[in-house]
Amino acid sequence: MNPSSTAAPPEAIWINGRPGQDVTVLDRGLQYGDGLFETMACCSGRVRFLTLHLERLRQGCARLGLRTLEAEPLRREIDAFSKQCGDATLKLIITRGAAFARGYAVSGQEEPTRILLRYRPLAPDPAAGAGVRVRLAHLRLGENPVLAGIKHLNRLEQVLARREWSDPDIAEALLFSSSGLLISGTMSNVFLVRFGRLATARLDRCGVAGVMRAAVIRTAPAAGISLEERALELSDLDDAEEIFLTNALSAIRPVRELAGRPHSVGPVTRRLQEALEPFLSGARELPGA
Amino acid sequence: MNPSSTAAPPEAIWINGRPGQDVTVLDRGLQYGDGLFETMACCSGRVRFLTLHLERLRQGCARLGLRTLEAEPLRREIDAFSKQCGDATLKLIITRGAAFARGYAVSGQEEPTRILLRYRPLAPDPAAGAGVRVRLAHLRLGENPVLAGIKHLNRLEQVLARREWSDPDIAEALLFSSSGLLISGTMSNVFLVRFGRLATARLDRCGVAGVMRAAVIRTAPAAGISLEERALELSDLDDAEEIFLTNALSAIRPVRELAGRPHSVGPVTRRLQEALEPFLSGARELPGA
Repeated sequence: MNPSSTAAPPEAIWINGRPGQDVTVLDRGLQYGDGLFETMACCSGRVRFLTLHLERLRQGCARLGLRTLEAEPLRREIDAFSKQCGDATLKLIITRGAAFARGYAVSGQEEPTRILLRYRPLAPDPAAGAGVRVRLAHLRLGENPVLAGIKHLNRLEQVLARREWSDPDIAEALLFSSSGLLISGTMSNVFLVRFGRLATARLDRCGVAGVMRAAVIRTAPAAGISLEERALELSDLDDAEEIFLTNALSAIRPVRELAGRPHSVGPVTRRLQEALEPFLSGARELPGA
Repeated sequence: MNPSSTAAPPEAIWINGRPGQDVTVLDRGLQYGDGLFETMACCSGRVRFLTLHLERLRQGCARLGLRTLEAEPLRREIDAFSKQCGDATLKLIITRGAAFARGYAVSGQEEPTRILLRYRPLAPDPAAGAGVRVRLAHLRLGENPVLAGIKHLNRLEQVLARREWSDPDIAEALLFSSSGLLISGTMSNVFLVRFGRLATARLDRCGVAGVMRAAVIRTAPAAGISLEERALELSDLDDAEEIFLTNALSAIRPVRELAGRPHSVGPVTRRLQEALEPFLSGARELPGA
């Protein structure tokens, strides 16, 4: 059963630091998707990789010209929101705020809107062991270096790619760019292993640079695994000895079937899962963090 | 003075047919930009080119897999919203509705959200006569045939292109695609005249197919002007004898300066303005409508 297909409303919502449910229809997040978001795992009241999430958010604010939120007050707000919840899934949305007038132009006077949502945690993931079944998406991602890498609110491509299948046994679809390069899943990043070396897609023209992707990139060297960010093609998938997906909530999920072809779950994937494990509780800092 | 830079809140808002201000933060319009919009001119209580707006909306719903709203009840709602307002600018937003669960997947049970906003009308446009000054945008539009042409809520590219300038005497910026083709302005479509013939950009890979663009396409033959939708390049701009912009609110605006170079407002533009004029009050149907 795909967990995303069951109705699961949030357990709590804060808007600008206070409990709430609604935002004005003038919010530019609604009007234009003018904002950013982060989806985070909370373990025993502690947000995993919060520093990485806040750093990506800061980069996104810079890219969109959103007033950068000060990291410390935001961190305190997230801490206050999460500390009583044990394990949970958190979603943070930051928009440019309510529009002062009709039209795309930014007045510069907008007050960003902060929305925090708390959901039940993901159940322990059996796919971390056995692996997941994955398809190839038909939809191709448009390319725009200005929007690449950041987790902005313009997500129609992901919505439409996710609508391409309804089989609950298929966990994810891999997406190619309009230039034909392999980029990511709809909600995950992709890693390949060939000759024992690890590679992941360069995300300079499209895709989201995931926090778990960053965690794997930091962890691999300490696990003795060389890693390269580069342009990946369909043939790299065909040649891969191992394929795995990363996501902030589900960590590393091996691919056991791609487009109907079985794949084996290999030793490099297992070694990375073990190397990452100590950091998943959120209690230990990543190397280089 | 750029009208979009002054604070101008809406005079009225309806949400799902009733006065309101807010939507739930779970609305997929906010979460993912999962929806569509239309911006319409209301003249003496009558929405101009409403049939064309509703047709584009229908196409957008089909493309996004949004439950198609029945045209007649929607038309009646828009009529009821606009009939007492004389002249106004209307904005209609349709989203997929509140999310049932976290994640991109659509449950199919979502109830679309309808938002109607009424703003003061645009002041009579002096630029319709004298023409506007226009720049070239640095940002290039990503290409995705699945999203091309429809007026969806993923508008970060337009927001960022609009942030490239603040000079209130510059009315618009022209945008190229990542393949280097001329597509549109941030909030308008573009037409060129060469050897007395009219051309506008093909919008099969990016851009929004504007309602005023459609109105010009329908009007041109009756005005004895031949028209071609085709791939346009920078050199086509250089060679153009006349350039004009179209927008649902401001109709036809001649370009009198492009990237610092003066352009003359020519006879084909004037002929089209005259041919379109009788239809702008909303009282007469367009040819072929």
